[in-house]
Amino acid sequence: MALDHTHDPAAASWVASAAGHPAFPVQNLPLGVFAPAGAPPRIGTAIGDSILDLAALARHLPAWTHPALGLPMLNALVDRTPDQRRELRHAVFALLTDPAHHAAVEPHLHPAADCTLHLPFAVGDYTDFYVGIHHATNIGKLFRPDNPLLPNYKHVPIGYHGRASSVRPSGVPVVRPKGQGKPPEADAPVFGPCVRLDYELELGVWIAQGNAPGDPIPVGTAADHVAGYCLLNDWSARDLQAWEYQPLGPFLAKNFHTTVSPWVITAEAMAPFRVTQPPRPEGDPAPLPYLWDEADQARGALGVELEVLIATPAMRAAGLPPHRLSRGPASNMYWTVAQIVAHHASNGCDLRPGDLLGTGTISAPTPDGYGSLMELSTGGKTPVTLPSGETRSFLEDGDEVILAATARADGFVPIGFGECRATILPAR
Amino acid sequence: MALDHTHDPAAASWVASAAGHPAFPVQNLPLGVFAPAGAPPRIGTAIGDSILDLAALARHLPAWTHPALGLPMLNALVDRTPDQRRELRHAVFALLTDPAHHAAVEPHLHPAADCTLHLPFAVGDYTDFYVGIHHATNIGKLFRPDNPLLPNYKHVPIGYHGRASSVRPSGVPVVRPKGQGKPPEADAPVFGPCVRLDYELELGVWIAQGNAPGDPIPVGTAADHVAGYCLLNDWSARDLQAWEYQPLGPFLAKNFHTTVSPWVITAEAMAPFRVTQPPRPEGDPAPLPYLWDEADQARGALGVELEVLIATPAMRAAGLPPHRLSRGPASNMYWTVAQIVAHHASNGCDLRPGDLLGTGTISAPTPDGYGSLMELSTGGKTPVTLPSGETRSFLEDGDEVILAATARADGFVPIGFGECRATILPAR
Repeated sequence: MALDHTHDPAAASWVASAAGHPAFPVQNLPLGVFAPAGAPPRIGTAIGDSILDLAALARHLPAWTHPALGLPMLNALVDRTPDQRRELRHAVFALLTDPAHHAAVEPHLHPAADCTLHLPFAVGDYTDFYVGIHHATNIGKLFRPDNPLLPNYKHVPIGYHGRASSVRPSGVPVVRPKGQGKPPEADAPVFGPCVRLDYELELGVWIAQGNAPGDPIPVGTAADHVAGYCLLNDWSARDLQAWEYQPLGPFLAKNFHTTVSPWVITAEAMAPFRVTQPPRPEGDPAPLPYLWDEADQARGALGVELEVLIATPAMRAAGLPPHRLSRGPASNMYWTVAQIVAHHASNGCDLRPGDLLGTGTISAPTPDGYGSLMELSTGGKTPVTLPSGETRSFLEDGDEVILAATARADGFVPIGFGECRATILPAR
Repeated sequence: MALDHTHDPAAASWVASAAGHPAFPVQNLPLGVFAPAGAPPRIGTAIGDSILDLAALARHLPAWTHPALGLPMLNALVDRTPDQRRELRHAVFALLTDPAHHAAVEPHLHPAADCTLHLPFAVGDYTDFYVGIHHATNIGKLFRPDNPLLPNYKHVPIGYHGRASSVRPSGVPVVRPKGQGKPPEADAPVFGPCVRLDYELELGVWIAQGNAPGDPIPVGTAADHVAGYCLLNDWSARDLQAWEYQPLGPFLAKNFHTTVSPWVITAEAMAPFRVTQPPRPEGDPAPLPYLWDEADQARGALGVELEVLIATPAMRAAGLPPHRLSRGPASNMYWTVAQIVAHHASNGCDLRPGDLLGTGTISAPTPDGYGSLMELSTGGKTPVTLPSGETRSFLEDGDEVILAATARADGFVPIGFGECRATILPAR
């Protein structure tokens, strides 16, 4: 995770739109899978307003990338050591900054607006954690005002398995799920369209090289297993969740759709934005040794600002821009990414390239940073008022939810995560 | 799921060892992925003591199977309608019963003892249910003696997502997981090798054709989406489970290893063994309409006898055979397979070919049919005595657990499920 010339704020690409681009300056170089108009998906990188076809430029890239660049997914490309992944970054950086490459490379730039973005990986397994301590506290308070966090929370990075099949890239509409719930006032459960549909603001972590079954990943090297990051919206059906989740956890409440931003913001690109993990509050227990690494504590948190915006049909009709519902830092995670990776593999569970880990909802201590409507509306009791005069306790059909993220650090060029948005369609 | 000539008890194969074979008579014809000695994996069927290489015989099989038979997994082969899957069964049956095919087919038979069996599918997602009502009751009694089942149990087929990466075929040893637990008498959690390692006796269900995202699967056609069945051992670390599972369910306690029997006992082979779902006990609520289908109630349960056996190192050293710990019928499931498939897709969650569903532990009301050591030893308080004089509350290193299943029905040839066994290795 070392800093190098690719992080130099003075570095410039010959792609003009990259200069000052809010998401994709040459310091970012995210990996993804895209399809130019009428063509099949292939591997590329975002640069300014364009997408560069890396598959077409394989001859300029390290030999080890050639077989992997022939596939429409990143799994094989990231199944590599950090040194090799950095080598790829350096090669792509050279193509986009060295004027000597300009003529050969330019034909393989596509206007991003004309391309379709696909899921970057064939997702083998998807695990969702619960490390946003303010979210856990806010949700816990709705059920247990005096004792919101369960006894294990500060010892165990709590997680559960999600559904890989339902992970979809930004832009794919969300069909409102039907399901079984039991309204508080009803004697018996009912089946019908979800009435408490919510979003959850999360970061996604893409796994690079995995571990052999039975072999744990030490916390001190866990960061080496991270290929990169994305935004993740863990759409949640709160009414189904409340009825189904005891004793085995969330299931149909969260497996109908999970939206990810399709660009993988690489671990290498994130090097300047590693920050100190906030110290544990006075009185919190020390983590067990398998979860503790001093270097990780010093540089293992993420300097990323997260936002949620909403646009309703009435807002769009009135020409109103999306309305920001919340904003807050990713450092509101109680456990670092290295800690959740090490915990996940601590029992020998094998992680594989392209596995997706969600952080869990990242909230703040105050409502301006709450990461779900469940929190913002206090479980539906305090609806949010929008600029259109409408209110929302939960999402309605036609609403669009947009997650956004920017990594910032003094002295470095900020980089963005790209789009993570989806609109709600009526139940089928 | 119709009966036809392939279920005729008088049918005979020209493969001599198939006659009266306890698992693989010609009426079974399970699908699987095997590797002959020194050769790569390919698709085959078990017949008596042999395995027939179906990939090598593609020219004798329906044209639609040809691309799928070139792969070392069954996903594409089962992504078909029930009629097509039956067509394949009929063609394989003809190869193995018609003497006219004998000479052409025999070179493609391999002694099973010389072959390696692989996972039959690339497992996209693995979901574990909890439909063994006696198991849920027995486990619930350990925590809530007066009220063992939670209020949702008889309304919702409870399930949770498992870990696809950790699913392995019979014979792969289980590395004892390490993990974080909190002994009841301790003030703080500890990390170390699991001390309450258990097995769970389950059936596995392999999905054939899936559903598009957002489109439910009606219960009346849910059985058409089942490719077949296997045995499934949901290895469980009870000490980790007790500490981690609140509020989001089991995680590291169950994702270190899941063993399946590698032969897929097809839905077509199971046609004679469909039985009436036991009526719900007096006073139990009626399921909601999306879970109810009269034909499924009449013929949607499985006439399968299940067994668990154990062999310890001391037993093996003394020449003692494996000891049966329990035996019971698969009809101890509170929900049918069609009900769990329909429930899983009721919110639009997309199931895909090769997805694996576990039933959850299938127990009986009495100890002779308990499906886990947790139940047999009453949470560790009443150890089981083995023929060697040893006792077991939970599994020890070197223990081998063997699951077995036979489908039986009057007037039909019984069929077996094949091996589902694994031995415990020490923690790493």
